[in-house]
Order: sequence, then structure tokens, then C-alpha cells
Amino acid sequence: MPAQPWCQREGMALLTDLYELTMVAGFWKEQRASQRVCFEYFFRRLPPNAGFAVAAGLGPFLQYLEHLRFSRDDLEYLATLGLFDDAFLAYLRDFRPTLTIRAVPEGTLVFPHEPILQVEGSVLEAQLVETALLNTLNYQTLIATKAARICLAAEGEPVMEFGLRRAHGPDGGLSGSRAAYIGGCSSTSNVLAGKVYGIPVSGTHAHSWVMSFPSELEAFRAFARNYPDRCVLLVDTYDTLGSGVPNAIAVFKEMHAKGQMARAAIRLDSGDLAKLSKMAHRMMTEAGLKDPLIVASNDLDEDLIADLKRQGARINAWGVGTHLITSNDCPALSGVYKLVAVAEGETWRPKIKISSNIEKATDPGRKHPVRYYDAQNHPLGDVLYTNGEPIARHGEIEGRRRSDPHVRALIRDAVRSENLFETCFERGERTMEPAPLPDIRARALRNIAALPDEFKRLRNPEIYRVMLSEAVGRDKAALLENPDVA
Amino acid sequence: MPAQPWCQREGMALLTDLYELTMVAGFWKEQRASQRVCFEYFFRRLPPNAGFAVAAGLGPFLQYLEHLRFSRDDLEYLATLGLFDDAFLAYLRDFRPTLTIRAVPEGTLVFPHEPILQVEGSVLEAQLVETALLNTLNYQTLIATKAARICLAAEGEPVMEFGLRRAHGPDGGLSGSRAAYIGGCSSTSNVLAGKVYGIPVSGTHAHSWVMSFPSELEAFRAFARNYPDRCVLLVDTYDTLGSGVPNAIAVFKEMHAKGQMARAAIRLDSGDLAKLSKMAHRMMTEAGLKDPLIVASNDLDEDLIADLKRQGARINAWGVGTHLITSNDCPALSGVYKLVAVAEGETWRPKIKISSNIEKATDPGRKHPVRYYDAQNHPLGDVLYTNGEPIARHGEIEGRRRSDPHVRALIRDAVRSENLFETCFERGERTMEPAPLPDIRARALRNIAALPDEFKRLRNPEIYRVMLSEAVGRDKAALLENPDVA
Repeated sequence: MPAQPWCQREGMALLTDLYELTMVAGFWKEQRASQRVCFEYFFRRLPPNAGFAVAAGLGPFLQYLEHLRFSRDDLEYLATLGLFDDAFLAYLRDFRPTLTIRAVPEGTLVFPHEPILQVEGSVLEAQLVETALLNTLNYQTLIATKAARICLAAEGEPVMEFGLRRAHGPDGGLSGSRAAYIGGCSSTSNVLAGKVYGIPVSGTHAHSWVMSFPSELEAFRAFARNYPDRCVLLVDTYDTLGSGVPNAIAVFKEMHAKGQMARAAIRLDSGDLAKLSKMAHRMMTEAGLKDPLIVASNDLDEDLIADLKRQGARINAWGVGTHLITSNDCPALSGVYKLVAVAEGETWRPKIKISSNIEKATDPGRKHPVRYYDAQNHPLGDVLYTNGEPIARHGEIEGRRRSDPHVRALIRDAVRSENLFETCFERGERTMEPAPLPDIRARALRNIAALPDEFKRLRNPEIYRVMLSEAVGRDKAALLENPDVA
Repeated sequence: MPAQPWCQREGMALLTDLYELTMVAGFWKEQRASQRVCFEYFFRRLPPNAGFAVAAGLGPFLQYLEHLRFSRDDLEYLATLGLFDDAFLAYLRDFRPTLTIRAVPEGTLVFPHEPILQVEGSVLEAQLVETALLNTLNYQTLIATKAARICLAAEGEPVMEFGLRRAHGPDGGLSGSRAAYIGGCSSTSNVLAGKVYGIPVSGTHAHSWVMSFPSELEAFRAFARNYPDRCVLLVDTYDTLGSGVPNAIAVFKEMHAKGQMARAAIRLDSGDLAKLSKMAHRMMTEAGLKDPLIVASNDLDEDLIADLKRQGARINAWGVGTHLITSNDCPALSGVYKLVAVAEGETWRPKIKISSNIEKATDPGRKHPVRYYDAQNHPLGDVLYTNGEPIARHGEIEGRRRSDPHVRALIRDAVRSENLFETCFERGERTMEPAPLPDIRARALRNIAALPDEFKRLRNPEIYRVMLSEAVGRDKAALLENPDVA
């Protein structure tokens, strides 16, 4: 029996900003609770220097939704706030979500202003789930994206996620390990993530192992004795080249003399990783240890990995902790959840949130993204269609610019299109099984492989095209002229 | 019955890096598991521009320790890894921690290189708890520190923590809200944190409330009808000064006309907060609304708050989300947990971790920090003593420099000293009740108030003095000459 991730535990209904509940109670008391609305989740900016993001977090959000119940002690707590009357609390007691959710599958590459998830249902329910949705998708998408960048820098060599000790609390580690694996990491140090999510776990020993033996050599021998098949020796406790590497060489040669044919493997965790790895590699190969595994760790990120490779470092596996699990250079994805349409009888009235900055104005209407591909199966660009609008499938794809919907935009030579949204929940019922995590990871890796290099540069990537369909462009142009101010 | 925070739930024993378990199993099989050792938790660097940190996270760590058990499904999972034999897993099944823990109380101000927590016990147990300890203390200390800086910038005006949607997963939000409250925030938007930790909750409505009504005015009226006593109107959905503020004024005047004497209150969430707040303040007071409450939010941090105040913004409450809950400019505290001593019979042998960088070399031996105060009750500096060493209580306090233990250091005119460590666990048993959260927060606020201004500047603060006692300095000098390399 695997442990249950947070979202399957009781008591997460209150994982929300208070204002969601005050609004929900207001809708309910104003008899507006059944008003059908549509919200969409998207982000306006990629992390700095990123040319794409990897969608992640949908699975845990759907599990939260499936288990969303207000427990008795939740309601008792809410009653103490003096904001909610008994009738409303009784309503919450029997509450079960009946939302319809459409979303891009986890592992899909996503871009600014593109709907990643769409929630349709009563305004009460759509509002109620906002905070948990943002919390889950923002963080996991952020970390999956960071992991993808780090794995690009590592050029196919394994990246081990080592971040738990610097993660933002226990679940920062657990959810972060899940997202890092989706983004391409090969393993995690986090044993709970291994148990809960089935992610491969890795790790050997720390400086304290070495320090708690009378000598480094004895510490290495003891480790090799216990883990002959998983023996990676940390060589920088005292003097990397003066004692650590020679002692490691001695121990691997002792093992080989005994017929234990373990691959010689060391970890460097400080100092000049380029120089030390080259010298350690030479010392090990000159001692007859073939093809040594040299793992590096110590405040690595995609830039440092790329730079170490440029300098010819002889490192063939990377342990990345702090910078990955916190997305150090951009610790928050500013994903938002905006009302895009309100039902009026059988039709939907598009809504817009205006801003003094036209880039920040939302794209109105219930939309879904369609991705177009060229003959080599590279993505060419995405078009946001209104739900139900006819979709051009290939050839010249016409649309409007997001930033100025009066201006026409074009995607040429499309040979294939893909509807990115799948319906995950239909009126509160799951409509598809959760995807297994290895499948999600494989999808992300496939998508990243198919993305042209210009979007994968670590610095100053090209901007991927996301445009509006004719209908969305028309609605946006009209609403920019005449929003709903009264 | 309040919900239980993560650390009181089952199944957190595996919240650890795998290498802790491989080391623990190695110690056990090498018959070294009962070797008594001492580890200390400290950090080497404050977040950039910070002159102090606020210790937080001890309470949840101690609760984790109290509930640390390997469940059957934990052991079943570990058995699948092919690393641990049945005898070791049987040992884990019956495992109960018997550690002794000394630590500074939460809310204590702490500084680089100073032991914040000390773990004494078998090497097996001390190693086993490392990752959970680092995860909990690093994150909560980071956020409590960030909150304290933001509250310093707000100069006593309330700071509401609004970060859940950008926090690193559910518990990034929950633990982060706890830490932000310790650091001085007055409330959180996170309802679960309200329920679990008893933190005051705050929040009113979002843009979507306004957008889901036929008009802004109707939306404001409906909100005022439902929450006459907690009515803060968000005025920037369409046009802050053109519609939002005038509509809000109209609604508050209607309320007042009906005899509801609510304080007029608005929230600004975009645009030039300095200018808009001044103009909104003037419009509201000219309309006869006295002393309006103007709440500002939108990517605030300590620098922006200080700058808005410098520009004369008429803001009197601050909603801070992303930058606070992620500690945006420094999303990880690099706290570490290092072996400092090994027992040899009845005595303790100090241990050192050497580095090519003398600043990174650890301070050897079981230590505890003592803080000295002047006649005005301002802290003067801290001295790290070995456990059991006689402590100078006032006057001239002599010691050695951390960075060069051959050099003498001095604290002058101390009139009072304070042992910062308390014993929280003695051989696995709690020795004191957990401190209530409001008491922890009050302690932090008292300590921050007593800290001289030179350490509280938001930029380029002075460096607080932490020095070694004579005995620690002597041990360090000797070990730097002759560490334990074999």
C-alpha cells in the first residue's frame, strides 16, 4: 500500500485563501451560486531565460478535487470566524464538486497566455477551487520547467534531484520531486517520493560517514563492504586529490582484487569541479579503473553545468539540489486563474479583465489551445480557439495577434494539428484515469526533443508563437473597446 | 479538534534522503550504530542584505521526532530497494528515537555559524533525522526572516501574508504561513493555517467577484450587504480612479446612510500604488469618509514597501504574497547539519570538517551559544562555548575569532548573559511543552525590537559578532593543524 499524497488525505478543503470562502458564501447568499462560469489557468511570463514550460501538477489537483469534502472540524473552525452563518455551513457540509475540467496533459509544453486548464461550472465551485489549483499547478510547473532546463544542460547525462533539505517544507520536497522527475530527472534522493510516486531513489553517503570512522580509508572500506553494487565514494571530506581520490582508488582496487567488479565511482561536492573531475579521472584511469563514474554536486544549476561542460569537466552524473527544488532564479511561476466567460442561458458571454498594460488584458471566452506541427513534427505555434469554433487543421492557419487583436497573424505550412485539451472531469466525474508518472515523464521528454533548438537555448531563446483564433480575436477587440464597467 | 500538521501524521519516517538510510544501515551492520555523536545545525550565510535571521521550525521538527515510526508499508517499500536486509528492516520496525535535543527557542535571532540546534545520541539516530531537520528548520527560518524584514519596512503597519497560491506546494503554504506569522505578519489568507495553527485569517474578494456581477457597483453593494463589518473593496478591476474608487465611495456612503458605520476600506492590486493610494485617499476623505483603510498588494516586498513609504503612499495595510512565501530574492537558507564531536568513553572528541576556504571550516566540539547584553538590553554579541565550559557572565568577555582562532576577540561592557539553548528532548523524552505560537511570535518581536538599528537596515547591515570561547578556539586551532585524515 503506497502512502497517500497530501491531496488524498482528509482535511485539505481549507487549503484555500479566505477570500475564496467569503466570495463563495456571498454568491450563495446572493442566490448567484448557480451562475455558470468558465475560468482559465495560465501564466503571463515564463521564468527568466526559459523558452518553454512543462505543465505539471494536474494529477494531484484532480485528486484534491476528487476528495474535496468539508469535514466536521473544518466546519467547526469556519464557524469560529464569525463570517459564515449556519445555513451556509450546512451547505458546505454536503458539498460535492460537480465541475467540468479540461486541461493539457501533464508533460505538455506550455507558453505564456495559453490556457493550461479550464474550469467550467457554478461560480461557487469554480471560485472555491482556485487557490488549491494555483498552488499545485504553479509550483509543479515551475519545478518541471527548471528540471527540463537542467537536463538540457546535462545533455542526456543523468540528473539526480537532491533537493529535499532545501525544499519549502515536506511537501515542497515531495511535490517538487514529482515535478523534477516529470521534467527529466532520473531519480530523487527523497525516499518518501520514491514510496509515494514510485520515482527511482538514489544516494550513497555524506561527509559525516567519513568523519565518524577513525579514518577516511576505513570509512570507504566499510561503505564498499556494505554496498558493493551501489558504491559511490564521497572524496572531498578532507583533501580531494591528496587523500579522497587515492583512498577511493585503493578501495576499488581492493574490491576488484576480490572479484567484485563494481564500477569505480566517486562524488565531488566542493572545490573546482572542472579541474578536480579532470584530475580525479586521470588518477583513476591511470590506476587502471576504467570508465569511472564521477558524480558532481554543490550548488549546481543549468548555467554551471553548461559551463563545466564547456571547460571539459569529466563529470558524468549530476546531483542537483537547492537550485532545482527552489527554482532558485525564479522561485514562483506567476500563474493566474481568470474568469473568461459567464453563461447566459445556452450561450456564453466572453469576459475580459482590462489592464492599463495591454499585454496583461486577458483573452476573453472559453478557449482551448491547438498546436500545429510541420512535416518534421516540430511545433510551429499554437492557436487559442473558442470552444466549439471550427478548427483549421493544416496549411495556412490564420488568426489574430494576442497583443493587438486587430492585427492578423499566420502560421504557415502546418501539416498536422493537435487539440491540447483533454476533458478530465465532466460534471464532477472523472472521465479518464490518471496518467502513470513514467508516461507523463516520457511525454515531456518527447515534447522537449521535438521542440526546435531556438526555444531550448538556455539564454535568450526565441519566443514561441501563441495567437488568437479569428473568433477570439474579434471578441477581444470588441471587449477592449467596451468592457463591462457600469 | 484541529487538523494535524504534517509532522503529526503517519508515514513521514521516509521524509529523508536515501543516503541517510544507507548510512544508517551501514552503521548498524558495522556495529557502529551505538557510537555516540553530536551534530549541530547552523547556517553559514544570511540571506543577502539580512543582518539577522529569526529561528523557526523547531516545534514541527520536535513533533516529527515524537511521531517518528516506520510503518509496515514504509518497510515494505524499503525492502523493494534491494539495499536493506531483513534484519535491518526488523530493527527499523521497532525503532524509537532516544535523542537529546538542545536548541534555541523559535523566535530567537540567530546569526551565521552559530549552533541553532544540537543533536546528541547514537550516530544512527543522529543521521536518520538529518534531512527532516534541515527541511523544516531551513524553510521556516528563511520565511520568518523574510517576514521580519517586510514587517520592518512596514514600520508597524499590519502585513497580511497572502502567499498560498505561489507557495511551494500545500505545505509550502502551511509551514510558510506559520513562519511568516512568527516573523511578524498579522494574519494569513491561508484558512488551513488558521485552522491548524490558530493564525488570524484575512481576505475579502477578488476581481472575479466584480466580474461575475452585471456591474462593479452591484458587485460592491452585494459584498457590503454580506460583510458589512469586513468590507474591503477591490477597486482595480476596470479603472481604479475612474470607476473603482467612486463606486466604493458610493457604497460606503450608502452603508453610512443606513447607519452601518463600517470603516471605508479599499484594496489596490495594480498600477502605481503610491500615486493611486494618494489620489484614492484624497477622493475618499473629500467625500467625507474619514481615515480610510487602504490596503495594497501586488508583488510587494520589503524594498518596494520602503520605497512606497518614501514616496508618501497613503497605504496603511500591506498584503504580501509571492515574495514573502517564496523568499523570492533568496529562496533557500543554506543551513547545514555537521558532525562536531564523537564520544570516546566519558569524554567527547571534537571533530572538524576542513575546507580550502577557512570560513567554511566547521567549529569543532559540542557547543552552545551565549548572548551578551549591554545596560540598555541590546545584544552585544554571542560566544560559542563548549558544553560544560565555565561561562563568563558580565564585564569583558574574552574569546577567539571564528575565522582565525589564534586571534583574540573581545566583547566589552556586558551586563547580562543568556544561555540560548534549551533542552527540548532528553534521551527521547520531551522535556518541555511546545511553546504556543503567539508566544513564539511575541518573542521574535521582542528580540527584533531589542536589536540595534545597525543590524536591521534593509541594505548593508552591520555584521553581528559571533565568536568562539577560549576552549573552542583552542580546539579549532589544534584541529586545523592536524585533522583526522588517515
